[in-house]
Amino acid sequence: MGDSIRSIPILEGGSDSFFDKLEAAAIGRKYGKGKLVFVHEDQAENFYILTSGWVKLFRETLDGTQSIIDILPAGHTFGETPIFEGGLYPYSAEVVEAADIYIAPLSILKEELETNTKLSMNMLSHLIRYKRQQDRELEHMTVQNAPQRIGCFLLRLVNQSEQGSVVIHLPYDKTLLAARLGMQPETFSRALAKLKEQTGIRVNGATVEMDSLDQLVSYSCAACSSEFPCNDLTDCK
Amino acid sequence: MGDSIRSIPILEGGSDSFFDKLEAAAIGRKYGKGKLVFVHEDQAENFYILTSGWVKLFRETLDGTQSIIDILPAGHTFGETPIFEGGLYPYSAEVVEAADIYIAPLSILKEELETNTKLSMNMLSHLIRYKRQQDRELEHMTVQNAPQRIGCFLLRLVNQSEQGSVVIHLPYDKTLLAARLGMQPETFSRALAKLKEQTGIRVNGATVEMDSLDQLVSYSCAACSSEFPCNDLTDCK
Repeated sequence: MGDSIRSIPILEGGSDSFFDKLEAAAIGRKYGKGKLVFVHEDQAENFYILTSGWVKLFRETLDGTQSIIDILPAGHTFGETPIFEGGLYPYSAEVVEAADIYIAPLSILKEELETNTKLSMNMLSHLIRYKRQQDRELEHMTVQNAPQRIGCFLLRLVNQSEQGSVVIHLPYDKTLLAARLGMQPETFSRALAKLKEQTGIRVNGATVEMDSLDQLVSYSCAACSSEFPCNDLTDCK
Repeated sequence: MGDSIRSIPILEGGSDSFFDKLEAAAIGRKYGKGKLVFVHEDQAENFYILTSGWVKLFRETLDGTQSIIDILPAGHTFGETPIFEGGLYPYSAEVVEAADIYIAPLSILKEELETNTKLSMNMLSHLIRYKRQQDRELEHMTVQNAPQRIGCFLLRLVNQSEQGSVVIHLPYDKTLLAARLGMQPETFSRALAKLKEQTGIRVNGATVEMDSLDQLVSYSCAACSSEFPCNDLTDCK
């Protein structure tokens, strides 16, 4: 367990004694698909370290629509911000692919942040990269059409320096992917059909293939303020 | 000058010696409307403290569309994140209403962040509130229609506990407001007309009047995951 917690990027800069305390206090648990980890506005005692699987962070509007804030892969933490937000979780968290999660007291993280500027600087750095990613998502909502936004999502899944033909495996199912991109399933289907037509990509179940990235880049990246390759944005999805 | 810098919310927690150094090094300058303060990807030596006026932060897409990241009122800083972003400004900054700005070396801020966890904790707290605001903006792009988004923008300008009739002064012109909301000017005009029709608000130049907030709240806030009043989001625009 020690290794997997010590290698979480957002905790980089933590002291040895911080990791020792975390390891002594954290509880590892397996969660099945569909399991709620916590609910928006629950009182927060713990934060969560995801070491395998996928977790969806979401909120619900008053009229019942679900809004997805993020879908996290392994290597991310969640539920840590109540330290700064009055002790309540600002979103709900649900496991979307069977997950291994360490549950650890927020008090240990808070104490370390209050005494170790290496950790707080590292966390600031992560948040700012995350903010850039959100800036770009907001920009794309305005300047890109739906097929371009799907193209952009695909480009952020690949090694962007790849030459020649490329195979991408979609990380989760298309309904969830549509929701992550803020699209209705039928809008997503139409947009994906248009993207195939415009760029020649081939989609087979969860696999997407193309002869090179060039078509996708020229189709999506003209309507973006970041230049391709935009690897700086890819790890903050 | 000392007072105005010491009262900037994001610098709260800075030590006396930090503020002394800032005051000794900072240069105050007046900027006219339309003046560019810096350009995206300029090498960053300084950050900027806005004590009056308005500043627009923006990027441009490869095909020439301008995307507004933020429009800042007095009391905000900008250009501070290159500390964490490889030393380059991640956006351009332009004065949109005549502004007083202090220009101060990033090195002083960086040194203080590396040694004073009070300041870094305060900055983390601000960034996380800002992130919540962006979460909500992304949500609204999906779940709210254009008139609801204008209604939401207006509600975040008022004292939300206000009873009875309300007068709102738009902080900047409608073209800029449309761009801030990611709308074309003609979409904005149509949406504002629809909002007036649905909620009975009266718009006269830069002044918006209504008999109470109720109509606006029931029209816009049903399609939002925050409950009204949402004052927690208002200061991070």
